[in-house]
Amino acid sequence: MWFQEELYSDLKVRFKGDLMYKDKSPFQDLRIYETKRYGRMLLLDGIVQTTQKDEFIYHEMLTHPFALSHPNPKKALVIGAGDGGVLRELLKHKEIKKITLVEIDKAVIDFSKKYFYSICRKSFQDKRVEIIIDDGAKHVAQTNEKYDIVIVDSTDPMGVAKVLFSPQFYRNIFNVLNKDGVLVRQTGSSFLQPHEIRDNYKILKKIFPEVLPMLAAIPTYVGGFFTFLVALKGKSPLDISYKKLNSEYKKLKLKIKYYNPEIHFAAFAVPNYIQEKLV
Amino acid sequence: MWFQEELYSDLKVRFKGDLMYKDKSPFQDLRIYETKRYGRMLLLDGIVQTTQKDEFIYHEMLTHPFALSHPNPKKALVIGAGDGGVLRELLKHKEIKKITLVEIDKAVIDFSKKYFYSICRKSFQDKRVEIIIDDGAKHVAQTNEKYDIVIVDSTDPMGVAKVLFSPQFYRNIFNVLNKDGVLVRQTGSSFLQPHEIRDNYKILKKIFPEVLPMLAAIPTYVGGFFTFLVALKGKSPLDISYKKLNSEYKKLKLKIKYYNPEIHFAAFAVPNYIQEKLV
Repeated sequence: MWFQEELYSDLKVRFKGDLMYKDKSPFQDLRIYETKRYGRMLLLDGIVQTTQKDEFIYHEMLTHPFALSHPNPKKALVIGAGDGGVLRELLKHKEIKKITLVEIDKAVIDFSKKYFYSICRKSFQDKRVEIIIDDGAKHVAQTNEKYDIVIVDSTDPMGVAKVLFSPQFYRNIFNVLNKDGVLVRQTGSSFLQPHEIRDNYKILKKIFPEVLPMLAAIPTYVGGFFTFLVALKGKSPLDISYKKLNSEYKKLKLKIKYYNPEIHFAAFAVPNYIQEKLV
Repeated sequence: MWFQEELYSDLKVRFKGDLMYKDKSPFQDLRIYETKRYGRMLLLDGIVQTTQKDEFIYHEMLTHPFALSHPNPKKALVIGAGDGGVLRELLKHKEIKKITLVEIDKAVIDFSKKYFYSICRKSFQDKRVEIIIDDGAKHVAQTNEKYDIVIVDSTDPMGVAKVLFSPQFYRNIFNVLNKDGVLVRQTGSSFLQPHEIRDNYKILKKIFPEVLPMLAAIPTYVGGFFTFLVALKGKSPLDISYKKLNSEYKKLKLKIKYYNPEIHFAAFAVPNYIQEKLV
């Protein structure tokens, strides 16, 4: 059976696979397809969010560059990320003592436990993890906690996730970050969604002293480089030397498949056509 | 109207656009579609080869990393590349005195002149360019010429291009390369065509003292990083210092949209999952 991703009006990606789960939560339409090449695929409102075979790229790049280069990453806040992949990778860092996950849709966590064990593993049960079912925007507006790393792993800026792209949301994140705190979020395809990185860069530059684009190539998200923005309160992931990073990396003996110390620095090299958007 | 790329059996990319040209040469089926997002698209045997809006990435990465870092790039051989994009970029380097283009299918050159002027510009008429309509494999087997840079810009390893992936072809290229000579070729998607880079790496490693994978993210070629192999007789593109490369780059005042000195080094950083294939 063929199914098709409904993300762009003039470009569709069709996959061969079988529908194995279908539900409607109060927030979104959830579907899982079983495919040969990508394993299980998770679609929210018709858009591919993650797949078993290539989720490692997105989840490694949202976590290791920051957990490894931050001088003292004790507490992390994760917004969205109900599939558990970000938790799985963050938990590999013993320095991180507490991770708060704020997911608006409990259904995503529940069916990730059931259908995406390869992504979440036992992360939701880890003693260092606190799970809050709530709106992430509300959480950063109200909490008294402070964090060293904030990871926003949300869907695209429409529907339920729209508020997670607003100036007020980013200002609140700035306020809940410790000194040397870092925020990272996805900002879509460099080629097919160029407005996303451009718009978010403009907003973040007004709030944070430094904002860096970061890139990865992720099969599931078609359209050239997939982009991230990294907003910094103090130290940058590029302030660490290759030598120090490499020694930290080797010490941890991480079982990872994309990130390594060479990729750490390469991910911040930006093609001219993307640089030009960020002015 | 929707049309669909016929490259993978379990994954199809569909584009909205209008057929504006259709022909059958003795070698292949040629089609051009007009699309909003990519401009004109060239399909050979149903597979997207190039598009007006993102061809710059592929063509810049096949040329500038080598033309800029080679100590003395006088003569280049280009096999395939009938759209003229590789010529256009190589001609920006005044050090290169002669470029020989060997294209098996004259029809590709003819309609590129007509329909893809934005790609070829006046490259085919440049005095430094020699055009030979012939089989590239035959050319390297028979020529007495020697080259500093050999660029193989062919379709995937099927049909007419199959011979351009054979050990004998690569041995002949080794023989036509000068000291410090470099061969670069595309080897497909890292995720969707993992065998291509793996198989070609194995063959090239038996012939060349050093073989490096190089990566770029190209919207048109879906599936994570698009891969290249760079086979070296002597000096490597990584032997040059950032400082020297940057000064050469600035001197040329290249009007380019992807490549820059940061990208030069970043393109040789390889994710673990690709490294693992190359053993």
